[in-house]
Amino acid sequence: MVISAASAFLVDRGNYRHFMAKEIHEQPEVMSRTLGQYLDFTTGRTALPAHLPFDWKTLDRISISACGTAYYAGLVAKYWFERLARISVDIDVASEFRYREAPLPQNGLAIFVSQSGETADTLASLRYCKAQGQAIAAVVNVTTSTIAREADVVLPTLAGPEIGVASTKAFTCQLSTLACLAVAAGRARGVLTDADEQALVSALAEIPRLAAQALRLEPQIERLAKTIAKARDVLYLGRGTSFPLALEGALKLKEISYIHAEGYAAGELKHGPIALIDDKMPVVVIAPHDRVFDKTVSNMQEVAARGGRIILITDAAGAEAATVDAVETIVLPAMPATVTPMIYAIPVQLLAYHTAVIMGTDVDQPRNLAKSVTVE
Amino acid sequence: MVISAASAFLVDRGNYRHFMAKEIHEQPEVMSRTLGQYLDFTTGRTALPAHLPFDWKTLDRISISACGTAYYAGLVAKYWFERLARISVDIDVASEFRYREAPLPQNGLAIFVSQSGETADTLASLRYCKAQGQAIAAVVNVTTSTIAREADVVLPTLAGPEIGVASTKAFTCQLSTLACLAVAAGRARGVLTDADEQALVSALAEIPRLAAQALRLEPQIERLAKTIAKARDVLYLGRGTSFPLALEGALKLKEISYIHAEGYAAGELKHGPIALIDDKMPVVVIAPHDRVFDKTVSNMQEVAARGGRIILITDAAGAEAATVDAVETIVLPAMPATVTPMIYAIPVQLLAYHTAVIMGTDVDQPRNLAKSVTVE
Repeated sequence: MVISAASAFLVDRGNYRHFMAKEIHEQPEVMSRTLGQYLDFTTGRTALPAHLPFDWKTLDRISISACGTAYYAGLVAKYWFERLARISVDIDVASEFRYREAPLPQNGLAIFVSQSGETADTLASLRYCKAQGQAIAAVVNVTTSTIAREADVVLPTLAGPEIGVASTKAFTCQLSTLACLAVAAGRARGVLTDADEQALVSALAEIPRLAAQALRLEPQIERLAKTIAKARDVLYLGRGTSFPLALEGALKLKEISYIHAEGYAAGELKHGPIALIDDKMPVVVIAPHDRVFDKTVSNMQEVAARGGRIILITDAAGAEAATVDAVETIVLPAMPATVTPMIYAIPVQLLAYHTAVIMGTDVDQPRNLAKSVTVE
Repeated sequence: MVISAASAFLVDRGNYRHFMAKEIHEQPEVMSRTLGQYLDFTTGRTALPAHLPFDWKTLDRISISACGTAYYAGLVAKYWFERLARISVDIDVASEFRYREAPLPQNGLAIFVSQSGETADTLASLRYCKAQGQAIAAVVNVTTSTIAREADVVLPTLAGPEIGVASTKAFTCQLSTLACLAVAAGRARGVLTDADEQALVSALAEIPRLAAQALRLEPQIERLAKTIAKARDVLYLGRGTSFPLALEGALKLKEISYIHAEGYAAGELKHGPIALIDDKMPVVVIAPHDRVFDKTVSNMQEVAARGGRIILITDAAGAEAATVDAVETIVLPAMPATVTPMIYAIPVQLLAYHTAVIMGTDVDQPRNLAKSVTVE
């Protein structure tokens, strides 16, 4: 008999109105647990499983396949692997990857990300890569799943059971796991020094505290949701690792409020979507004060010039430096660039959640959607 | 004094109401001219410039950067280079690529696609790649442009001057050029045999005729546009090389009609966007009867089950095999898979065009947009 780790959690809503709210609020705890599995805080080093079925030093390329929210976690990881470990990453939605028959490198690594570990297209992509001799790593929340069983190495996310159909804590735990992986890769490849690794591990160790601070913004976001609930369409913009977050923010709002939200790389705004913008269109801009912040500000100015209503999610330095009138500014604590995706995810999730609650949709079981997509 | 090739064209609208209509209708002619530059129809071989600054046989990876519509042309080319030449392709929007500082292979090839050849983010990406020692190929419509001047090899698209802000003929000429490039790469690498190359060149030679046939569907599409003009939101779905076309179809409609259209990989539908679908939502499905057709049909069934109104763009075999009631089926001639993107682009362009005309927008100069984005 296998006792699943999941049974250790009491699966009820507690004092929350919806599972999704509970799961959003669990994030400081479950990210802490997930990070604790891959980091050694006493030595300030990463601590991956001992016998990996690949060698970071000789890896030429990684391919990542996933669907929906897990794909966006992979897209953030692409930036990390490239920057921290100088490994190029080919990423695709699994339903495309499996039919592309992509050429794969000798002795490559393929990473599959899935909450349930049963996503049909992701599993089919895994089998293609396995047949092509790739080492298979699975980032899954359910360690007894098919994807976990067929992988060469399983990197569990310790999010606990996720009941809400719209993924929240599984996403940030996927990000946490992938961040540790990228730091370990960077150290093993000599791109990061010991000191770099320790600085990054220290930064990651701050995540539970920062996540708890982000959750304290809930009353402001709940008020803001009243504006969003009146919108027919919403744009989400970001650059760098905030670009996948823009995609994820739009997906979350679509899934549970049925508002047509769309995420875009901020730099692509002028190549088309700016035509949509008028004074009825809220534009959520995800922009920590990082090295691409000024570029994002210039995109915000274009939105403002067309009457678009900007909701800016940033930090104190960003709020100060943004030379644009935002309808609302959500100010998160300052933090190192590598940890922003896990923390900026939280206001984005809360905004979708409170909008859906105001609109009266079935938040935990939105129409047309299943928790785990086990058909193609 | 430099006499630009552009001056050979008389830049007026002729008998057309808008430049965009004229440019859509020029496609059989301009694709023919573009293909004629890269193919030798008498020998049935590709005919690229003699001294390429890279060797197809030793190329490990190509990176492609572009913005907007040109990015979608590059995304189609990724499928072609992988399938026809077994070269893996890293593609990104230029505004992301330039700040990612992606690790690049030794002696790699970087391709930049731009109608104007002046797109600021694409140019910045070119300069990054050049500094990293990559061979630089430019697929541009303006051969006197900055991107053309800074490239190691220029592969001109012979679309003639494009005046409509929403790109049409430049897009299909970019696709035509990239297809020739992928076939040449496949032959040089020994992935394609002589017979394969000849079959592909014959298929490409049919494009002008097929494009002319596609244009004859205009009356049906004009009627259909009355339905689209009433919609608030439209989804475009496709798989494989029809996925970038879905993105392009949505972009075109956004740009000139200001309807919030969004393109999605059909297999991602169940991972979120299906929540948006109700009986007011037209869903345009781009699905030639190819090897992923059956998978797309199952996505169409999900749309139909939620009351979504399907507009199916396919061929006779697809219309016959689709077991779903479509509101409208647009039937194109049968054609080899490699040429579908250039031909299926045409009904997609006509649908956006006629929708915008019905809505009374400024088709050639849509609000907020510039023809060539020379700022970041």
